[in-house]
Amino acid sequence: MRESQAIERLRRIATAPGALGLADDAALLDGLVLTHDTIAEGVHFLSTDPAASVGWKLVAVNLSDIAAKGARPAAALLSLTLSDDELWDMSFLDGIEAACESYGLALLGGDTIALPAGAPRVFGLTAIGRAGERTPLRSGARQGDSLWVVGTLGDAAAGLAQLQSDPASTGQLVEVYQRPVPQLAAGAALAPHATAMMDVSDGLLLDASRIAQASGCGLEIDLGSLPLSASFVRERGDGADARLFAATGGDDYALLFTLPAALDPLSLSLPRRTTISRIGRVDAQGKRLSLVSNGKAVPLPERLGHEHRGNSTSPMADRI
Amino acid sequence: MRESQAIERLRRIATAPGALGLADDAALLDGLVLTHDTIAEGVHFLSTDPAASVGWKLVAVNLSDIAAKGARPAAALLSLTLSDDELWDMSFLDGIEAACESYGLALLGGDTIALPAGAPRVFGLTAIGRAGERTPLRSGARQGDSLWVVGTLGDAAAGLAQLQSDPASTGQLVEVYQRPVPQLAAGAALAPHATAMMDVSDGLLLDASRIAQASGCGLEIDLGSLPLSASFVRERGDGADARLFAATGGDDYALLFTLPAALDPLSLSLPRRTTISRIGRVDAQGKRLSLVSNGKAVPLPERLGHEHRGNSTSPMADRI
Repeated sequence: MRESQAIERLRRIATAPGALGLADDAALLDGLVLTHDTIAEGVHFLSTDPAASVGWKLVAVNLSDIAAKGARPAAALLSLTLSDDELWDMSFLDGIEAACESYGLALLGGDTIALPAGAPRVFGLTAIGRAGERTPLRSGARQGDSLWVVGTLGDAAAGLAQLQSDPASTGQLVEVYQRPVPQLAAGAALAPHATAMMDVSDGLLLDASRIAQASGCGLEIDLGSLPLSASFVRERGDGADARLFAATGGDDYALLFTLPAALDPLSLSLPRRTTISRIGRVDAQGKRLSLVSNGKAVPLPERLGHEHRGNSTSPMADRI
Repeated sequence: MRESQAIERLRRIATAPGALGLADDAALLDGLVLTHDTIAEGVHFLSTDPAASVGWKLVAVNLSDIAAKGARPAAALLSLTLSDDELWDMSFLDGIEAACESYGLALLGGDTIALPAGAPRVFGLTAIGRAGERTPLRSGARQGDSLWVVGTLGDAAAGLAQLQSDPASTGQLVEVYQRPVPQLAAGAALAPHATAMMDVSDGLLLDASRIAQASGCGLEIDLGSLPLSASFVRERGDGADARLFAATGGDDYALLFTLPAALDPLSLSLPRRTTISRIGRVDAQGKRLSLVSNGKAVPLPERLGHEHRGNSTSPMADRI
């Protein structure tokens, strides 16, 4: 079944208000923010990725959704498949533990299963956060708002490309791909003010189109203002191609949000060393998504992002 | 990694009080009861099981944990793998919907992913219930309590055996295997009074040993008093072998609980047509688990239950 069909069918089941129409990063229940991500070997991580990094990543990608709703990590349930490789499994759990400890996430339970021989590893995590005073959704962007990103773009995709050409690659970009950092403190500081917010997991342009769709507005993004890391620029430069790569790469776990134009986010108590960049604006008159560079319109690339990572046979939802 | 090793490692991570030492059916958070079960093709369901029954079962087995804690179904997150078989996937979601509607469970979100070609189907569900005035744990059984079961035992295992010898089998026992019914109303009525309660998913004897272990007591079970359905007796008789089969079969989704000896559960407002049976007692002096039949001691079988279902290569936890 195609993913769009599945989502359409699921929307007819998930009619409770807290489901947010299956069109947001997370769901809401009794002041809690709920999310679940499943990751599979060969689809969301490489067989050659260090086991501890896979455990870390499973927690981090879920907490990125919690961050995007301005919530605080509270509790998690783990779906764990066991393999015949004891060292791998133990190291995976080391990664789970490191991430839970780093972000104050209490592992409360879950399930352990064994899959039939030869099956890929599959892991799931349900993460639960406590909502802050306000929970920004994808749907609140308004005409005149400015569009911002916390974090840099393209590093993880560049790291994945390095690993795909040489599995022994190391360095900063590989590190970002394998051990993403959820922007929890920034998310909590921004949530009371952001008109819309989500995390960038599938590529900036694809995720921006989701805010535009949910908010019923258009977004104009200036390619020249995308935040690129020094490591990224050393690897791929900062020309138009590199910027389009960064805008569509995925796995960034940055925060994408809109603010009233008059609000300067530097007046908020963001963590030190937060990278924050104004990358565009809400333009209700235009198309859902438009790109400019040096003041000139740039055509949208054919692919706005990656709906799944590391494999190219089937589509995957960012979240039902 | 062996499951016991994994659980031991996970217990060192899951130290929050709400995790209940990873030794109960569910976890507790802010008045909510949380559980997650993952099911895999060839392990927890048969490739030939009707897709709608697999969806139903995924919801029902999670709600059985909610029932065992006396909670009311509130919300769920689904981890859905999509396949190339659109009719199968759609029918699976029909089963999810039917179970959610039957039990008032609001689907709030989750994740859809595609697995690499050839991988078995894997589905996960996180179910969240609202706790009642009291949440019975596995650990509260006390000397002198009586031991009870709500539901019948052995039907699902007998149905699975029929399907394994002939995949075209039909009938009441197959129906119980494929479409278990969580004992939600009985669980809610019993929870204020039960000193300990859990659901029977892996076999009566194995699950009873878990209550004995968690409560630090011994349990004596009278094989002659096990609740057997008419369909079960027609298929397998009610001799000693049949009773041991029923006591170790698994997939029952019955409730196993202890009550103060003076309390007659028929005085509680159980649903009409509830099958409730006194099957033994707490015996703090004896072994963790002992069996009697016609007043005589019976040796424990080598296997107390099935830690996983439908496959026999690897162990599976009932819940981490």
